[in-house]
Amino acid sequence: MENQCVVLASRPEGMPVEDNFRVERRPVPDVNPGQILCRNLFISLDAGFRNWMDEGSGDNVLPAMPLGEPVMGLTLSRVVESKHPDYAEGDLLMARFAWEQYTVTDAGDFISRLPADVHESLSYYLGVLGDTGLSAYFGLTDFGDIKTGETVLVSAAAGAVGSIAGQIAKIYGARTVGITSGPQKCARLIGEIGYDAAVDRTADDLHQAVTAACPNGIDVYFDNVGGPLLEVVLEHINEEARILLCGSVATYNNIEPQPGPSNLFQLTTKHAHMHGFMTHLQLPRYDDARATLAKWISQGDLRVHEYRLQGIDSVGRAFCDLFRGANFGKTIVEL
Amino acid sequence: MENQCVVLASRPEGMPVEDNFRVERRPVPDVNPGQILCRNLFISLDAGFRNWMDEGSGDNVLPAMPLGEPVMGLTLSRVVESKHPDYAEGDLLMARFAWEQYTVTDAGDFISRLPADVHESLSYYLGVLGDTGLSAYFGLTDFGDIKTGETVLVSAAAGAVGSIAGQIAKIYGARTVGITSGPQKCARLIGEIGYDAAVDRTADDLHQAVTAACPNGIDVYFDNVGGPLLEVVLEHINEEARILLCGSVATYNNIEPQPGPSNLFQLTTKHAHMHGFMTHLQLPRYDDARATLAKWISQGDLRVHEYRLQGIDSVGRAFCDLFRGANFGKTIVEL
Repeated sequence: MENQCVVLASRPEGMPVEDNFRVERRPVPDVNPGQILCRNLFISLDAGFRNWMDEGSGDNVLPAMPLGEPVMGLTLSRVVESKHPDYAEGDLLMARFAWEQYTVTDAGDFISRLPADVHESLSYYLGVLGDTGLSAYFGLTDFGDIKTGETVLVSAAAGAVGSIAGQIAKIYGARTVGITSGPQKCARLIGEIGYDAAVDRTADDLHQAVTAACPNGIDVYFDNVGGPLLEVVLEHINEEARILLCGSVATYNNIEPQPGPSNLFQLTTKHAHMHGFMTHLQLPRYDDARATLAKWISQGDLRVHEYRLQGIDSVGRAFCDLFRGANFGKTIVEL
Repeated sequence: MENQCVVLASRPEGMPVEDNFRVERRPVPDVNPGQILCRNLFISLDAGFRNWMDEGSGDNVLPAMPLGEPVMGLTLSRVVESKHPDYAEGDLLMARFAWEQYTVTDAGDFISRLPADVHESLSYYLGVLGDTGLSAYFGLTDFGDIKTGETVLVSAAAGAVGSIAGQIAKIYGARTVGITSGPQKCARLIGEIGYDAAVDRTADDLHQAVTAACPNGIDVYFDNVGGPLLEVVLEHINEEARILLCGSVATYNNIEPQPGPSNLFQLTTKHAHMHGFMTHLQLPRYDDARATLAKWISQGDLRVHEYRLQGIDSVGRAFCDLFRGANFGKTIVEL
């Protein structure tokens, strides 16, 4: 049986380009006792994996990816053959597998099962019902403390996390404002995701753009990006504002040191609060959170935006699109 | 009647020096209907007032101080003559008055009364029972969430706020570590204030010094200074750490923009929390807080450290001592 894999052809310098990746055909390895063979149905593209494409970038999460070997990522997969006592043919998994059609594995730590009452749209488990959607949910639910009519600002507002955060804030009664790049994506934030207003982060005068979009100031800032944007936002927060710093295992290694906001003292004068959170720590609450999110989806309160490409040949491009901002919503490839 | 005043002789360039101030003798003005005459018993020295000594530094808190006129500050004062219906001779006040022996005033906004059951040590109302002590109390009580045995780190640990914060954290069950400048003040932190350990911020390797003093990491950081020290501390925080950014009306204008911490993302990976707070907003809780603080003082759990100088001639020097770090505890001058 043939296995098409996307291997790391060369290490990206700065932003990844499609030439960094190459599809290779390899035989599917034998399934030894204690192993399972999975067919990968969807590949999730997450910018954070860029980190481990650098030489010597290995850490306690992943080793540096070797040149010429399949690129590591996140997949939604189905067991097609099991020689492992805990898995049966047909089991559905979320896994840290490579960008390939088939994976043979010992079934170690980086696999979790889909819930028994699985949602019919399997790809949702890589997005709205996966770590990205749950990040939006737990951040706003645990630390947002949104009162009706408050202004919630979301950065990377069209991304996998942001597109959900903006909608959940709306469900919680907020006026929502999204930040993204360029007038076209700003228009889509409002028209497709339902934000009340948008801020173009490429605007000449970003302070003026924030003021125009948030005439009553900012009560909650759901921050997916950090960096210089936070310094701008801090100038516009209201008293007792909440700033949510979103992180997930999939992405946190991507964050390079960058100058911090010089106006952090705004937190004091506005007696405001900043909360860091890590979604995977809420694992025991995943089922309940997914039930709530699924209910909102079925009621039409929460729309799912996928930037979905088809086939193994599209994986490299889909990954590069993340860095070009070509995506809108959660980026996945259906194999 | 003669009134000795400390006037602004010249504007400080950088750190204030004693030549910036000059004592002048002036007559006490007449007390007109609607006014009160106060004798100033103590002058509180607060670094924040440095801000309004600059040309054009006026803001919504205070105008820029005029050259040749008495320097503005905080005092503890007694009414000696009243032509105002709300005040009687003998009333004790905390006030934003000038550095002078006597003040005649219309008794406007910047005056508050001492409580009826006044503590016998009147100067405490400028320190442990005033805004500085209450800042330590409300910060730790409202946002510290200290569990027994946790490590609480305090910056400017020998200062008016820090010296109280370190002791309250101890009362709440913490192991306490103070940051100050120089080995001598470090020794005094432990010997006189009761910190369990001290960090010398002038150490060659500050990270190593923090690690040595906080072998179990940092659970709470009570930050009185901000700036580069925060970046160092963020590298040593534990999961779910609380960082308290202390502010008060008296001091916040002193904070100049400075580069923020480049590692703010530590808040995310450690799922930690940062709380800004402003003490004067807790005014309705002052009486209860003061009762608690007074009880701790009477029980011997809370020791009061005053850096006390005598007489109007000492006021300029006491102010300059704040910037030289010569003070230990709350800096006041008894007139």
